[in-house]
Amino acid sequence: MSERRPLLGLTMGDPAGVGPEIILKSLRQLASDNARPVDLVVIGSASCMQAAAQALDQEIELDLDGRPSTWPRIGLIEIASADEPITPGRLSATAGRLAYTAIERAVALAMAQKIDAIVTAPVAKEALHAAGLQFPGHTEILAKLTNSRDSCMMLVHDRLQVSHVSTHIALADVPKRVTPERLRRVFELTRDALQDLGFTRPRIGVCALNPHAGEGGMFGREDVDVIAPAIEAFRAEGVEISGPVPGDTIFVKALAGQYDAVVVMYHDQGHIPVKTLGFAMDAETGQMSALSGVNVTLGLPIIRTSVDHGTAFDIAGRGIANPQSMIEAIEVALEMIPAHQAARAS
Amino acid sequence: MSERRPLLGLTMGDPAGVGPEIILKSLRQLASDNARPVDLVVIGSASCMQAAAQALDQEIELDLDGRPSTWPRIGLIEIASADEPITPGRLSATAGRLAYTAIERAVALAMAQKIDAIVTAPVAKEALHAAGLQFPGHTEILAKLTNSRDSCMMLVHDRLQVSHVSTHIALADVPKRVTPERLRRVFELTRDALQDLGFTRPRIGVCALNPHAGEGGMFGREDVDVIAPAIEAFRAEGVEISGPVPGDTIFVKALAGQYDAVVVMYHDQGHIPVKTLGFAMDAETGQMSALSGVNVTLGLPIIRTSVDHGTAFDIAGRGIANPQSMIEAIEVALEMIPAHQAARAS
Repeated sequence: MSERRPLLGLTMGDPAGVGPEIILKSLRQLASDNARPVDLVVIGSASCMQAAAQALDQEIELDLDGRPSTWPRIGLIEIASADEPITPGRLSATAGRLAYTAIERAVALAMAQKIDAIVTAPVAKEALHAAGLQFPGHTEILAKLTNSRDSCMMLVHDRLQVSHVSTHIALADVPKRVTPERLRRVFELTRDALQDLGFTRPRIGVCALNPHAGEGGMFGREDVDVIAPAIEAFRAEGVEISGPVPGDTIFVKALAGQYDAVVVMYHDQGHIPVKTLGFAMDAETGQMSALSGVNVTLGLPIIRTSVDHGTAFDIAGRGIANPQSMIEAIEVALEMIPAHQAARAS
Repeated sequence: MSERRPLLGLTMGDPAGVGPEIILKSLRQLASDNARPVDLVVIGSASCMQAAAQALDQEIELDLDGRPSTWPRIGLIEIASADEPITPGRLSATAGRLAYTAIERAVALAMAQKIDAIVTAPVAKEALHAAGLQFPGHTEILAKLTNSRDSCMMLVHDRLQVSHVSTHIALADVPKRVTPERLRRVFELTRDALQDLGFTRPRIGVCALNPHAGEGGMFGREDVDVIAPAIEAFRAEGVEISGPVPGDTIFVKALAGQYDAVVVMYHDQGHIPVKTLGFAMDAETGQMSALSGVNVTLGLPIIRTSVDHGTAFDIAGRGIANPQSMIEAIEVALEMIPAHQAARAS
């Protein structure tokens, strides 16, 4: 399996969002770059991909045999056709169901080693809910479908990797999630992911939970009582890991190259710096002029990367969606495949 | 009083830290720029300022009558001389006591309208504690000395203003600080500060407490139950205020000019983006090559701005401290004086 070109499966996401559009733009871009030896196949609905191509005024030809094809031909694995028309920007149970089915099929293919990684376009939680699928997000769907517990969200932007101890929970619930077991798990997943990404001797910085790392216990004891000992224990095993470092300086240090990854304790602690650095909005139009950042799910038996933005219903179907994050997600998945395959072969 | 040039009092901070050095560098810079009509006087210890000048290999002359002077002459209000030598980088009770006394004197002068604003160099909490002064930070000292309750920390970087609903508390204690009364107070202080800074019709964005603003209550109810109604109530009074906006996009929007200020719920939510944007570390030396950002205390009867970095004991006395934040703190104080004086006169 490791001798052929890697094959990525791109799930189309919610077809009423920007997913089909950014996939088409990414495929065109990658074809024109003609750089990486990679095969890609879209997992979704032919009618939705055709509609997106029409909106972009592009001619594409879909090869429904599930084999990769060359732009403007697109290899597609048809999951189901929409049983009612999909309107860009309009939330619907049908779109939610299609988005879910694409993920389900992609996971089955990846688990069977028919594809080497999954790259996902965004889904709308509300549409999943409308379809009776109660998941807080993509990550939780993947954990369930692969029967994985204790996965971890890593955001990647430029040379910055950020792993999250917790994500989609109330801020009030964060402190109790910061346990020795969870910290160790996230440290391990982060080290392994860095190695997969080519860092031979990964350096990890761990962000404090409390401001000023709790100022010696004055503002919260978790940094002293839980996080520092977990770091010590992991360092004792020979890993270059340091902290807890106060949140307001750790990213400055990471950007200066002091760490290959930062472990944060909660969603906003990692998402605020990564998106503030990676995204830029055009002041005139309010559209995203930069949209850099990749979401990687660690701790699954398969490789999964994703855009780190939402469905953007407000601009769906208008041809102005930015494919940057999707292209980066494809690139990060490609970087992770060789190490993953080597581990599986050994 | 409003007819004379504004007079700023610069407190020297902990004399074992970088405070005296960045003050000297700022005074030299401002003298060479020769731009703003401003008078400055240092509030501190003559021996400490002389030692800093010597370390920089500079000749200065201190005018101890407390009147402003022109570089290389420096107007100085002597608070006390050190009763033992101050060693750069070494924590001591003596240095902590001197730092505190300078603040105390500065507040008294400002309350008596002898100076128009206080600009503070950094203090070391540990040195204050060694001197028997139990304060979590500068802000709490100022609140006590001016008998102010319910002040608010605003960080200013470039065109971005960020006000904090809470600061030096454990993360676990944050949700209970997010009350209707506190939110209203911070909204008011933020609006007033923006007006003082020249925004005639301030636009405020309010950051959500929970990730995704709680996703309609799935991850915490505070955004729905407390923050949204507080925003509604304030908007009903004619203020342009919106939110709660998820933390990972609000700064992207603010940087694109959609808000003049962002209100955040806790320390790291505001400090991470401001410092990640404003600071930059040289990868080779580990020194700060950019150090932009000002800390403004809102809700005091006096104007107080500060650097937004610490004492940097590790580089004290080496002549390499960056005065950028101090210069910006002086500039922000100057911007706030006219409106403050007009309010006092009316």
